[in-house]
Amino acid sequence: MKSVVSLRELREERKKLPGPVGLVPTMGYLHAGHLSLLRQAGAQCASVVVSIFVNPTQFGPQEDLTTYPRDLARDLEMLKAGGANLVWIPTPEVMYPPGYQTWVTVDDVTKPLEGSLRPNHFRGVATVVAKLFNSVQPDKAFFGQKDAQQALVMRRMAQDLNFPIEVVVCPIVREADGLAMSSRNVNLNPEERRAAASLYKSLQAAREAYENGERSASRLRQVALDTLAQEPLAHPQYVSCAEADSLQELDQVEGPALLSMAVFIGRTRLIDNIVLGR
Amino acid sequence: MKSVVSLRELREERKKLPGPVGLVPTMGYLHAGHLSLLRQAGAQCASVVVSIFVNPTQFGPQEDLTTYPRDLARDLEMLKAGGANLVWIPTPEVMYPPGYQTWVTVDDVTKPLEGSLRPNHFRGVATVVAKLFNSVQPDKAFFGQKDAQQALVMRRMAQDLNFPIEVVVCPIVREADGLAMSSRNVNLNPEERRAAASLYKSLQAAREAYENGERSASRLRQVALDTLAQEPLAHPQYVSCAEADSLQELDQVEGPALLSMAVFIGRTRLIDNIVLGR
Repeated sequence: MKSVVSLRELREERKKLPGPVGLVPTMGYLHAGHLSLLRQAGAQCASVVVSIFVNPTQFGPQEDLTTYPRDLARDLEMLKAGGANLVWIPTPEVMYPPGYQTWVTVDDVTKPLEGSLRPNHFRGVATVVAKLFNSVQPDKAFFGQKDAQQALVMRRMAQDLNFPIEVVVCPIVREADGLAMSSRNVNLNPEERRAAASLYKSLQAAREAYENGERSASRLRQVALDTLAQEPLAHPQYVSCAEADSLQELDQVEGPALLSMAVFIGRTRLIDNIVLGR
Repeated sequence: MKSVVSLRELREERKKLPGPVGLVPTMGYLHAGHLSLLRQAGAQCASVVVSIFVNPTQFGPQEDLTTYPRDLARDLEMLKAGGANLVWIPTPEVMYPPGYQTWVTVDDVTKPLEGSLRPNHFRGVATVVAKLFNSVQPDKAFFGQKDAQQALVMRRMAQDLNFPIEVVVCPIVREADGLAMSSRNVNLNPEERRAAASLYKSLQAAREAYENGERSASRLRQVALDTLAQEPLAHPQYVSCAEADSLQELDQVEGPALLSMAVFIGRTRLIDNIVLGR
């Protein structure tokens, strides 16, 4: 496994890789969720490139850019063991040199949910992933369903801009108690960690209601909110029941629906989701 | 020479072309300026792809989208004679299918000159060229210096987004009286056609002043304006003397400067430029 920093080195090493090439974009501090993306990429592609870049342009001024967890040595060990062929670790100066001024924006699908609470977040994500796509030139790129809206934005961008790249979305990987794997979970203290299981518990409660025939989106949201309300450390920012592709909020669940939420556990903001009816 | 409409056909035919591949993006109604781009592409590349697409997203609501001149049969003859290998003629529906929502914007260099008068013009240009780049996957792309700001925007976008594509900018091709080749010249009646020579005449007058030692940007602009004022049919929209890369207006010409103008001749808007000090 080679690891490189500059774009020039990346392009040189990329040329040597047999195709098809899979890309797994990450912000580092890897966990079992990332490793499942790596496994999928390895199963579908002859070579796997992983990028590690905590992308400053997708963090808001009040967000956790500076405290975002990092452990490069551990990441590289995990990637080597996981079978990655090439790791790109650009610095912010490599990605955004002086005079940088080009942005990729996706309109409708970035407006609700995370986009409504995190202005410019998806502009930063779309821009950096467009750069990763052009730099690595993969045949496939692997994203996690945990960031469901991000996965939709990536699909939309790749399709709209005619990137010759297949966007593959992989299932959420969970801890034994249901907590979705996230680099931010490390910020939870033991009590918060226990409380964080309430996200998945509330999604499961809503799924059970759905499976028992409930189709009112507002009642499904309420089932999740009621379950979250039983956990004093959980402070929901939103609970959404939306059409699975457009992310428009639903009245009635008729086709596939994304039930998603953002919840503060202490100072840590967690997101999670399930898809109903697919 | 093959010509195709759909993205699928384009990708299939593109695969068969020996590299390096050159791309010449056009809006059709070809003239000697386009043919010089084609010649350059042919000289530098093993295969040449030309796109013909009158891109609606780069026209403002008051602009000449519907009256923009078109003659596909003639274009295809010229391209065949000029040695193009593949022509892509996407429809607006191929380029912007229902639900389309992704945009590429370039910030600083799009703000002055054409960008200040044509809101969203360069957003449309950058977006469609990003799509052309991803669809055709050329090694080099050829643009004309006649659209000097556009050429800068293309360079900036290709560099910022890490497109693995060299942007080549080719010199302006002029009629015998100095008028820069443009598809819009066909809209000039004979009297206007005569008057249109005043653009280059005024640029030449400013160049002469520069070569005689004039370095005040405002006096250089004034020399051009005074020359234009001698032509009653010429109505300048702007005359700029700006730093050649940033397009910031200058006080004194010290390094390379772009002397550029937009002038209405009757209802036809023409642009032209020269570079001083390079």
